[in-house]
Amino acid sequence: MPQDIEFWFDFSSPYGYIASQKIDALAARHGRKAHWKPWLIGVIYKKYGYAPLEMAEKKAYFYRDFVRHARFEGVPLSIPATFPEGLLAPSRALYWIEDRQGREAAARFGRAAYSAYWAEGRKLADPEVVAEIAAATVGAAKADVLAALEDPSVKARLKAETEAAIAKGVFGSPFIIVDGEPFWGSDRLGEVERYLAGEGR
Amino acid sequence: MPQDIEFWFDFSSPYGYIASQKIDALAARHGRKAHWKPWLIGVIYKKYGYAPLEMAEKKAYFYRDFVRHARFEGVPLSIPATFPEGLLAPSRALYWIEDRQGREAAARFGRAAYSAYWAEGRKLADPEVVAEIAAATVGAAKADVLAALEDPSVKARLKAETEAAIAKGVFGSPFIIVDGEPFWGSDRLGEVERYLAGEGR
Repeated sequence: MPQDIEFWFDFSSPYGYIASQKIDALAARHGRKAHWKPWLIGVIYKKYGYAPLEMAEKKAYFYRDFVRHARFEGVPLSIPATFPEGLLAPSRALYWIEDRQGREAAARFGRAAYSAYWAEGRKLADPEVVAEIAAATVGAAKADVLAALEDPSVKARLKAETEAAIAKGVFGSPFIIVDGEPFWGSDRLGEVERYLAGEGR
Repeated sequence: MPQDIEFWFDFSSPYGYIASQKIDALAARHGRKAHWKPWLIGVIYKKYGYAPLEMAEKKAYFYRDFVRHARFEGVPLSIPATFPEGLLAPSRALYWIEDRQGREAAARFGRAAYSAYWAEGRKLADPEVVAEIAAATVGAAKADVLAALEDPSVKARLKAETEAAIAKGVFGSPFIIVDGEPFWGSDRLGEVERYLAGEGR
């Protein structure tokens, strides 16, 4: 049984979103599944006192590239009015769903949450919106989701996953690990696919 | 007459090197030429107190990605023993050649200098090596090159080009500008090509 592909991402990352719309089909073409793993990229920005959007030159470029790259990749994207922001609620909800309903349900929620934010302009920082998406995609009761988002063990889980990500060398989003081999960026999806097909090993 | 594509790069950038082996043929497929423009990326690192290879996680990843990405792109690359380092001499020499012999001669020197460093392991920080490459590629007299590398006006030219790059929003290498549209990274070459073909305008 081949290992799942690790798909590390932050919901506030547009390149993570672009990859999210392709990763499951890409994995399936090679008899694999993607294991969706949200983490908080802000923790590594804080560690190094550096965030790319704080550089004026990078910010100007990225706001242009987000939209253009998505267009070239055939993925609908418009930059949310509240971007950039921390998106803890959907990240916590995803692990809570995984623990109760498994990885496929978690991925289904993740895909919908990413689109809600990056394509539909919904307020993904809002626990109510997250509960609605969980109800619609995996049948969770909204009240249960809202309670889970306040549960210290659910909060601790996301913190631990973020620390685990950084410990294994994850520093960006998306960050894809195939049988221990790391790939950073939506622009490495072509190489991920070639690697899965047996090239470059 | 269509404008030349601006090809901004730092000789110490492996992604710039990978792009350098493809940019002229890419431009030619669309009736264009690439205008080779070295600049010193260290100046922007200093401005922001940030360099990617100073982050342990990024450094570990990049040293792996440089080699793997080059292999996937079909470009021979091995990381020089002296990398990373500032490479002022070939950058100064390139503008000096352009001023005397034009853009095509400058590009011919640039391609050879990039390969000398990233594929052949030659010491590109050494003025003697730069003079040898200039002699071999554009027929310059070695003594003239060595004198030019000490000329204050040649030094000032590279400084001015670096400032011009930053003023127009260049922050990485390679950084390609097509009719005012900016593209950062060797992984954007496919989009550069589609843009030249009329897509995404």
